[in-house]
Amino acid sequence: MKEVYIIGTGITKFGELWDKSFRDLAVDAGIQAIADSKVDVSEIDGVFGGTMSSGRFIGQEHAAALIADYAGITPKPAIRCEAACASGGVAFRAGYFAVASGAMDTAVVGGVEKMTDVFTEQAAVTLGGAGDQEWEVFNGATFPALYALIARRHMKEFGTTEEQLAQVAVKNHLNGSMNPIAQYQMPITIETVMNSSPVADPLKLFDCSPITDGAAAVVIASKEVAKEHCEKPIKVLASAQASDTLALHDRRKITTLDATRFAAKDAFKQADTTPSKIDIAEVHDCFTIAEICAIEDLGFFEKGKGGKATEDGLTALEGQLAVNTSGGLKACGHPVGATGIKQIVEAVKQLNQEAGKRNRKNVDLALTHNVGGTGATAVVHILGRGY
Amino acid sequence: MKEVYIIGTGITKFGELWDKSFRDLAVDAGIQAIADSKVDVSEIDGVFGGTMSSGRFIGQEHAAALIADYAGITPKPAIRCEAACASGGVAFRAGYFAVASGAMDTAVVGGVEKMTDVFTEQAAVTLGGAGDQEWEVFNGATFPALYALIARRHMKEFGTTEEQLAQVAVKNHLNGSMNPIAQYQMPITIETVMNSSPVADPLKLFDCSPITDGAAAVVIASKEVAKEHCEKPIKVLASAQASDTLALHDRRKITTLDATRFAAKDAFKQADTTPSKIDIAEVHDCFTIAEICAIEDLGFFEKGKGGKATEDGLTALEGQLAVNTSGGLKACGHPVGATGIKQIVEAVKQLNQEAGKRNRKNVDLALTHNVGGTGATAVVHILGRGY
Repeated sequence: MKEVYIIGTGITKFGELWDKSFRDLAVDAGIQAIADSKVDVSEIDGVFGGTMSSGRFIGQEHAAALIADYAGITPKPAIRCEAACASGGVAFRAGYFAVASGAMDTAVVGGVEKMTDVFTEQAAVTLGGAGDQEWEVFNGATFPALYALIARRHMKEFGTTEEQLAQVAVKNHLNGSMNPIAQYQMPITIETVMNSSPVADPLKLFDCSPITDGAAAVVIASKEVAKEHCEKPIKVLASAQASDTLALHDRRKITTLDATRFAAKDAFKQADTTPSKIDIAEVHDCFTIAEICAIEDLGFFEKGKGGKATEDGLTALEGQLAVNTSGGLKACGHPVGATGIKQIVEAVKQLNQEAGKRNRKNVDLALTHNVGGTGATAVVHILGRGY
Repeated sequence: MKEVYIIGTGITKFGELWDKSFRDLAVDAGIQAIADSKVDVSEIDGVFGGTMSSGRFIGQEHAAALIADYAGITPKPAIRCEAACASGGVAFRAGYFAVASGAMDTAVVGGVEKMTDVFTEQAAVTLGGAGDQEWEVFNGATFPALYALIARRHMKEFGTTEEQLAQVAVKNHLNGSMNPIAQYQMPITIETVMNSSPVADPLKLFDCSPITDGAAAVVIASKEVAKEHCEKPIKVLASAQASDTLALHDRRKITTLDATRFAAKDAFKQADTTPSKIDIAEVHDCFTIAEICAIEDLGFFEKGKGGKATEDGLTALEGQLAVNTSGGLKACGHPVGATGIKQIVEAVKQLNQEAGKRNRKNVDLALTHNVGGTGATAVVHILGRGY
């Protein structure tokens, strides 16, 4: 396999962007990434675009070709990739395979979602498409409800408290307050979370990531192209993915995401490293309980100890490892198809010490963790600096 | 790049399959392909699934993970790929990159669509998602209407006749009558087409491919794995793709699909061959005019001569080259996400002389051509026998 490098990044503001369309957002992020990479558009060999549900959100399939068209990349090929909220992660992997194989030297990989063109109820039903339509969604299960089941069980098995869940939101909002593209840039307190409206007990409004518009993109390239254009390349040390049952009730356990465990094990093996060597991790906190499960299943903390670790500040910006320096899905926002790429953009910025006030002091290794549904897909990448 | 081989195929019946769900179809084709490949399920490294619009047809995104789940392939990774009606073609390419890179040794690549769970009007709107939602679909353009514009212009520029278009349908129905999985297995006459109801002038009902349920799958593998399991491997000699503007009105010309031209040029270069060496071609005949454009743009016939070539029988089973031996989208049916893989399954069967009564006598090189929308995506593969 050829080595693959990230040589440019682009990202839009995340939020309720009433004056931006799907194609505006995608093209904005993509063009930023190409400009940042210093590669000429004519050198781009292909586009890989992650979007979960452009069909149901805006009536548009064939989204990658649309983006190639509006970004002026035609006649180069464009492939849309999807794995629900892990669509960005799997798009990155598809592009990674193309460059690693030698079929392409340079590719743009992006993620985008325009979620606010439909009413919130319709958005919730559309997001249900990430679960099992026949066994879960048809019977009324929504994603807050499914993650609430995970949270309740985690609390029962391990003594995790609602305050510990709330602490995830408090930390991520603090990080988000230092991120100029974040949807929410205000710090909050434990009380803000504990007093917020119930959504699906024990999850409250501030335990949930929001509905968001936004896009992110990176340019990836072979070593030869990277050396020609880039002084601060980021090397993809591992690209791993695993899957699990789509329906939560079919799982071995609901407090452990086996897909995360399998993907993490593979990723650490590929990168020849261990969880203790990771400095920052962008993990999939679609709900606060998801971050607790993630930091356990990725191997950063013992199973059942994620809540306590968060409470003790071990995942804060200068803690044992910094988790979700971008603000995470919780505060930075969660345009579902864009999230996996946003995580990679944040990791690149942290590694290059370009994340401003939220930059952790020393960052040598970064991990990203992108989940689809309640864990039927998990994608883990490990990134490092240089050649 | 590592060489990539096709070592197993699977396909379901195509048609209005009221007693089969999306997951039934996908799993049926996938398991057939795995059984045919003689690879154990535990050796499968990943799943790549093409589906255009499972979100709008059945409310289900995250479709590749669902298939991995129901086929018993978890925890191996699964990625859904989409490029409208070329979703099967791009899924094959994503899997091809993974095996060519060495990241995977064996992968299942499939395509599936379940289109008959919605009313025909809703299906037409959903298929509109392959075009430009803001400039075409919102303003009332449907796919028959867009292809009718192409047909009318082709008739004006080159003197192509409605009878020549009809001849495409007649040929493909004859081929389909020899294909046991085809949706329509009855031969028709020119009069059947000419007397059928107008859909979008000059296209009539029998100029149009139908709404279809169905799935197809192949197992692809590295040379090492192929040699271990397969006596009749098919080698992927070329995998090429190009894109064009999503909206028809933005094109340089509407009677030439530039994406097809670019993809074909690249494919012939990769395979180091020429159009005259191809024995059979499965081309994207979503409408009869599309086959005429395809056989011209792929380089089999001079521009403007595709209608005459068809009329003269040059694309019949034992003609200059056999086009759409499966019956094509027209008679075999067009479950949009499955079509690109069905074309590859047909090519493999023809190369291995396993296509029964419709097998052309000598087949050494086969080409497949899968189009998304009105040509914003074109995918071309060239396949041959052996190591």
